[in-house]
Amino acid sequence: MNFQAKMLRDDALKNKNIVVTGGGSGLGKAMTKYFLELGAQVAITSRNLEKLQTTVKELEEETGGKCFAIQCDVRLYEEVKQMRDEAIKQMGSVDILLNNAAGNFISPTERLSANAFDTIIDIVLKGSKNCTLAFGKHWIDQKETNKTVLNIVTTYAWTGSAYVVPSATAKAGVLAMTRSLAVEWAKYGIRFNAVAPGPFPTKGAWDRLLPGNLKEKFDLAQKVPLKRVGEHQELANLAAYLVSDFSAYVNGEVITIDGGEWLKGAGQFNLLEDIPSEMWDMLEEMIRKKKNK
Amino acid sequence: MNFQAKMLRDDALKNKNIVVTGGGSGLGKAMTKYFLELGAQVAITSRNLEKLQTTVKELEEETGGKCFAIQCDVRLYEEVKQMRDEAIKQMGSVDILLNNAAGNFISPTERLSANAFDTIIDIVLKGSKNCTLAFGKHWIDQKETNKTVLNIVTTYAWTGSAYVVPSATAKAGVLAMTRSLAVEWAKYGIRFNAVAPGPFPTKGAWDRLLPGNLKEKFDLAQKVPLKRVGEHQELANLAAYLVSDFSAYVNGEVITIDGGEWLKGAGQFNLLEDIPSEMWDMLEEMIRKKKNK
Amino acid sequence: MNFQAKMLRDDALKNKNIVVTGGGSGLGKAMTKYFLELGAQVAITSRNLEKLQTTVKELEEETGGKCFAIQCDVRLYEEVKQMRDEAIKQMGSVDILLNNAAGNFISPTERLSANAFDTIIDIVLKGSKNCTLAFGKHWIDQKETNKTVLNIVTTYAWTGSAYVVPSATAKAGVLAMTRSLAVEWAKYGIRFNAVAPGPFPTKGAWDRLLPGNLKEKFDLAQKVPLKRVGEHQELANLAAYLVSDFSAYVNGEVITIDGGEWLKGAGQFNLLEDIPSEMWDMLEEMIRKKKNK
Amino acid sequence: MNFQAKMLRDDALKNKNIVVTGGGSGLGKAMTKYFLELGAQVAITSRNLEKLQTTVKELEEETGGKCFAIQCDVRLYEEVKQMRDEAIKQMGSVDILLNNAAGNFISPTERLSANAFDTIIDIVLKGSKNCTLAFGKHWIDQKETNKTVLNIVTTYAWTGSAYVVPSATAKAGVLAMTRSLAVEWAKYGIRFNAVAPGPFPTKGAWDRLLPGNLKEKFDLAQKVPLKRVGEHQELANLAAYLVSDFSAYVNGEVITIDGGEWLKGAGQFNLLEDIPSEMWDMLEEMIRKKKNK
Repeated sequence: MNFQAKMLRDDALKNKNIVVTGGGSGLGKAMTKYFLELGAQVAITSRNLEKLQTTVKELEEETGGKCFAIQCDVRLYEEVKQMRDEAIKQMGSVDILLNNAAGNFISPTERLSANAFDTIIDIVLKGSKNCTLAFGKHWIDQKETNKTVLNIVTTYAWTGSAYVVPSATAKAGVLAMTRSLAVEWAKYGIRFNAVAPGPFPTKGAWDRLLPGNLKEKFDLAQKVPLKRVGEHQELANLAAYLVSDFSAYVNGEVITIDGGEWLKGAGQFNLLEDIPSEMWDMLEEMIRKKKNK
Repeated sequence: MNFQAKMLRDDALKNKNIVVTGGGSGLGKAMTKYFLELGAQVAITSRNLEKLQTTVKELEEETGGKCFAIQCDVRLYEEVKQMRDEAIKQMGSVDILLNNAAGNFISPTERLSANAFDTIIDIVLKGSKNCTLAFGKHWIDQKETNKTVLNIVTTYAWTGSAYVVPSATAKAGVLAMTRSLAVEWAKYGIRFNAVAPGPFPTKGAWDRLLPGNLKEKFDLAQKVPLKRVGEHQELANLAAYLVSDFSAYVNGEVITIDGGEWLKGAGQFNLLEDIPSEMWDMLEEMIRKKKNK
Repeated sequence: MNFQAKMLRDDALKNKNIVVTGGGSGLGKAMTKYFLELGAQVAITSRNLEKLQTTVKELEEETGGKCFAIQCDVRLYEEVKQMRDEAIKQMGSVDILLNNAAGNFISPTERLSANAFDTIIDIVLKGSKNCTLAFGKHWIDQKETNKTVLNIVTTYAWTGSAYVVPSATAKAGVLAMTRSLAVEWAKYGIRFNAVAPGPFPTKGAWDRLLPGNLKEKFDLAQKVPLKRVGEHQELANLAAYLVSDFSAYVNGEVITIDGGEWLKGAGQFNLLEDIPSEMWDMLEEMIRKKKNK
Repeated sequence: MNFQAKMLRDDALKNKNIVVTGGGSGLGKAMTKYFLELGAQVAITSRNLEKLQTTVKELEEETGGKCFAIQCDVRLYEEVKQMRDEAIKQMGSVDILLNNAAGNFISPTERLSANAFDTIIDIVLKGSKNCTLAFGKHWIDQKETNKTVLNIVTTYAWTGSAYVVPSATAKAGVLAMTRSLAVEWAKYGIRFNAVAPGPFPTKGAWDRLLPGNLKEKFDLAQKVPLKRVGEHQELANLAAYLVSDFSAYVNGEVITIDGGEWLKGAGQFNLLEDIPSEMWDMLEEMIRKKKNK
């Protein structure tokens, strides 16, 4: 199978103007690229303007689309408002907000300082809130409708997870915000959804999270029923669906795309996968004999 | 917005052979039509052969695709195996199973007989299980891979619902089967997902469920944040994504497409929507005064 | 810590008449014993009258309480009605129904016949439904109130689980029934809840589920964050709370008592538990150096 | 039924030292009172020392127990550490942390400033995190075991809710932290759970949330299947169970005590409750006639 195949009709995002926070690299960049290919204009933001500009150049060359770089620390509401105004100035309006900027520490929680924990809450939860509030207030004030917000969360937003606790708490908050505003702001023509990606390795993030030889030791593909990690285009296909008008009746939903990873861990007897076929034969035999006694 | 717009590339389901149970009418028919338009062959099944044949004729004329009618009572495993063999004979193989056949009584539970309750469990839960088992055993025996099963459930599969309790129990069972086999049968190259549609009215089902003037009294659109019911094409877009290879990394997932309906009911303070804007002004004023005292 | 300690006031279930299906052994017997100690009368049911009578004798001697044995195959609605009538005849009335009777096959799903799968659905889902319907109709007809139903489910009722798929589908159905009727029948003064126990080994069930040396190989205690399996009294304490009037405001809820087992599997990074402390030291050092460059 | 009845054995919390944040009034005070009655020592904290001292005096007189007042703004980690040290100094050690301090604004989200939103995140999420981190680090450092943390959340922590969005996001974060650390810190002998109370009116909070005549207009009891709000003792019974050793095998769980409120809203057909009995008769008649045609 070709996991790079592109799903949507070529003009699926024509006339759509999109802001992607954290769009300079990794999954944000992959989604941005596909949005451009589908006809959208995209403004990408992060704290690192230089990296953004390199990405803009690269993506414009590859796709022929129109991409903009806007520097912004999402933790600071004033910067977020400026970013919003700049995006509107550059693209004329904004139809879609993709809250993708995030941070994470992989660490035993007792080794984290209260400040380090706060930093992740500030980037992930307050950052998503700041962008949502800045764009939402604008759209509501201006009576602009047919808007949509897509939030990137994680599968541990509802199960929690050890060793990434600040991220778990912050992403859970983003998910609750998604569901709350999906109901509250529907009357203003604003729709909210979330995506929870499983293992989609990206050079930068993966290296930071699992340095050294841990990547081999903790091979995430083995935790996935499908025995592989995801390809960026697979996530891009789903994200493009969710920001497009084709998903207009999907609202308040979080869609998991993880090959079944979290379920494999969760189900009580899933570990019996390690029983070889011959042992099942033997077990059946034993049970049959017991019954016949 | 045009809710009839079609999302996927024109050849998205080319070379795919699909079985849709309960495909003769309603949502099953709508999904079948779109699958045909996307290049798939589809066999539709139900107990009523005549209705199936009418639908086949209609859909082949409209789409130019290849559609087959196969009579089958999904409650009977022997009939299901015959249906499977017939589908394979007609189409060469089957790649995708869509468990869509269902039944429902809308009634206070204490008015149901034990038998009536069983009927729904048999059609919905045992029926989906029979089809899944018949196709799954075949695929595993024949070592055929890259297969997928899509199950239609409901939003009350996890919350439960009064007045449709047999359906709620049965659909919950189907959802658990989806998640269980998504993990267990991944090693055989079989993927499982579900869709939970909110209000997508269909003439037949809707009339049976809400006869008389109840349709006006209990206008489901009002329960939806988006204030409208869904269009069949919107469900078809999502279903086509989930049976296609484009969703190859989505596994064990249930996707809700209900405009936010269940969340609107669930959230504790969502009822405050009825507070008019002027009263919010007044409340803010009161709170401000209290603080200044 | 003493996990055998008993929680409730001594008269917590005084004047309560309880039916416990599958009460002859295992967890059903353990809960029955504690109910008797708390002053309740209990009728236990199963297909095996002899085993029931042995249990009744044993429990009455140990507790000084009043216990009754009633033969019943919960799959058969007529037998269930007779059981109900007999329980009422013996105890005067029934206040509490505990749906505990269950069956399970541990097996790869493709090795199960359609019939074997049906057997589990019939015992677990239809059995719980039959008892609920028989008692519910009686209570509603007779306008008796302050009744409660407690259903024993599993943690894989919502996550699903490989290798126990019939049980997963059936228990999911029971959970949906719990939540549906908690809402629908509240107006009749009937309350519904469920308990999802994790690993509480019982000689019979455990042996059947994991024969031979598999019990050592798949040591469930290791999957539990607390690194131990549960003691029967711990489940009995929770069950007694949920059938007593002390939980009168808990309705439609499923309470998991598994030491955190399912969450430990579910959370994406929980496997990092295997990283030793020294490696965390090293990782911190590496990250610090990277930052200082 | 007497909803004020007290469940646990009289010495259930003997020798337990508990910290209850936000313990000066409302539900925190009600739980504290019951903890004192069960033999615990309790330190209550809030920003308002005077109110705490009044509560301490009142509760000590009523219960004969030992209660302490400690001023603390949970948003400030340094204050939290001082509070922890003071609690240990007063009581000798701390066994149980109850994160109950909270804040809430009831408001359309677009009327909130970014700062107002942050305030709730800081009190609820960062506050709970600060207390958890301060006590957890201490227990882990000192190798003290058999500790437990109970977090008060809300039913909209997982569904979200309009008009209380900052609280929804923050409480969702607290729930994820509960589940994450239940797994991660189990190895240190620290257990985590949460309670999600439905409508338990308290004078202060209720007045602030629903001023004026809104309390009549939005009568929360009507949303509850049981048609009543909860009594404080009912919550206290559940909380006492969860902080006691009797719940030692419950870990990572959130228990809802809301009379079924959230489920009643969530289930798709629950609104049919408004159909009168005679109309069900008529509907049955119509359906019967249709079938006989």
